[in-house]
Amino acid sequence: MSERIRLFINDVSPRDGLQNEASFVPTADKIALIDALSCIGLCRIEATSFVSPKAIPALADAAQVMQGITRVPGVIYTALIPNLRGAERALECRVDEFNLVMSVSETHNLTNLRMTRAQSASALDEVMALARAAGVPVNVSLSCSFGCPMEGDVDPGEVMRLADHFVGRGATGITLCDTTGMAYPTQVADLCRRHLGVFLNTDLTLHVHDTRGMALANVMAAAQAGVRRFDASLGGLGGCPYAPGASGNACTEDMVHMLELIGYDTGVHLDALIACADRLPSLIGHPVPSQMVRAGRRDRRHPVPASFEEIRARALARDAA
Amino acid sequence: MSERIRLFINDVSPRDGLQNEASFVPTADKIALIDALSCIGLCRIEATSFVSPKAIPALADAAQVMQGITRVPGVIYTALIPNLRGAERALECRVDEFNLVMSVSETHNLTNLRMTRAQSASALDEVMALARAAGVPVNVSLSCSFGCPMEGDVDPGEVMRLADHFVGRGATGITLCDTTGMAYPTQVADLCRRHLGVFLNTDLTLHVHDTRGMALANVMAAAQAGVRRFDASLGGLGGCPYAPGASGNACTEDMVHMLELIGYDTGVHLDALIACADRLPSLIGHPVPSQMVRAGRRDRRHPVPASFEEIRARALARDAA
Repeated sequence: MSERIRLFINDVSPRDGLQNEASFVPTADKIALIDALSCIGLCRIEATSFVSPKAIPALADAAQVMQGITRVPGVIYTALIPNLRGAERALECRVDEFNLVMSVSETHNLTNLRMTRAQSASALDEVMALARAAGVPVNVSLSCSFGCPMEGDVDPGEVMRLADHFVGRGATGITLCDTTGMAYPTQVADLCRRHLGVFLNTDLTLHVHDTRGMALANVMAAAQAGVRRFDASLGGLGGCPYAPGASGNACTEDMVHMLELIGYDTGVHLDALIACADRLPSLIGHPVPSQMVRAGRRDRRHPVPASFEEIRARALARDAA
Repeated sequence: MSERIRLFINDVSPRDGLQNEASFVPTADKIALIDALSCIGLCRIEATSFVSPKAIPALADAAQVMQGITRVPGVIYTALIPNLRGAERALECRVDEFNLVMSVSETHNLTNLRMTRAQSASALDEVMALARAAGVPVNVSLSCSFGCPMEGDVDPGEVMRLADHFVGRGATGITLCDTTGMAYPTQVADLCRRHLGVFLNTDLTLHVHDTRGMALANVMAAAQAGVRRFDASLGGLGGCPYAPGASGNACTEDMVHMLELIGYDTGVHLDALIACADRLPSLIGHPVPSQMVRAGRRDRRHPVPASFEEIRARALARDAA
């Protein structure tokens, strides 16, 4: 391989990770986490969500977080925006990008967002109009793009139609979300290739979960299919709390570790990233699913046992005997 | 894709899994496990190890296990054979195949087997001579084929030299083992392709661990590179107890789930396999890392919430209002 292909990693842990924590992470700790993530080569950080504090108390400090962080040039600080009220709050906090969400599955959308897809789409259209007026770019995340835990398979055509709807209204990015870990590599490659072939000027991001162990296989398949942007969560924190069986966003440090090994340039400083992840358990009070935190990089050297020279001497003595 | 490519799955849980359990699994339970695995399309089962009962008390019942199982035609019952004494015991029990092991890394071989590689190779040569005389096929598993946790990278040329040594002495199969989860997909594809190109009449098996989250990505890369045989362990049980940082054999049911989804024919009945894995926690007294046990297949349907019709009615009422 000559020139390495550049990929762009979006860490969603401050939002998608922390919103699922049982205990409230203090605002200062959230800010420290985002500031740490800002300096290590991530292209985008989903910093918080401007949801109703009653709906998600864990992120009730969205405004304080956005105002408290030290913005690093080049890093896009995005936030999840559920509705017009959230969008107004987000604009006051000068978020760099709105991330809007709805589901490809009618059942999942109703269960998760309490709206029909048609209602969600028109509510998001209003948010997009506001964003357009304010000059803020919009990314739309399509949940259940690879299957719904209640409905089963979803029609890839429906994914394309929703993407087309939002791209037509000015979305600059679309994220295809494997919300409950139903995606598999050939499916990911097929849908991403189809998407890339149609939406030539739209940033495509892939968001996968490791629910069925295929997160990194899916990421590899997507990268080979031409996807250049990936969501991931530090430590593997988070997932969708409403989706049955959901667990585990793909882990940022495990993903970067693999992508760099197979020849991509993620731009991320892996050791610094792992250092961030190492601090998570004390921040949130429990272990994280990260393999890097447990095992370290593949080039981590373990010491030989203290008795090694003795073992060798005894082995060689057998030959002499 | 027209005709699906046939893969062959070797479950190593009765040996590589159970030998790492803290408590002794009763012989009858081991036999029941192997008998259950025999009827679901696995091509090969590593049933036990004929090691010294003092070295590994967990497998002290190797002979009783081999004599107690009900052999299913077409399934190869293999056993790990550490030395001549073990080989003699294994022959008495009519194992179908010997699986011999040594490490590509001198440091790992000394630490793990208390012998230099040269000593291991000549000890295994004696076992192979015995096997040849008895007409029993031999597979040689090369530990640390993708890296050593103490030495770091290993020379792929050394892997090839050791494979050549054993193929030259009649080994019918070689297993390239990622003993501590250091392998990554491009490395796996490169080494496997090189091996397949040289050893045309030797069965190549890949044995990977999920220590760094890349097990299934590595398996996919290997399958695409032409590998047709894979080791895996029910429930993801086991790993190498002597290797620092080692954890988690690739999980059989997670692997079969992915391989079938991406278009390969594993020959394995996935639901029956998951049913076997579901019984493991009660057998061994702790949870297993299997994603299938936790989340189920991707086509598992979750019920809609009891309040779903109410949610929908309330949503639709908003439109009417």
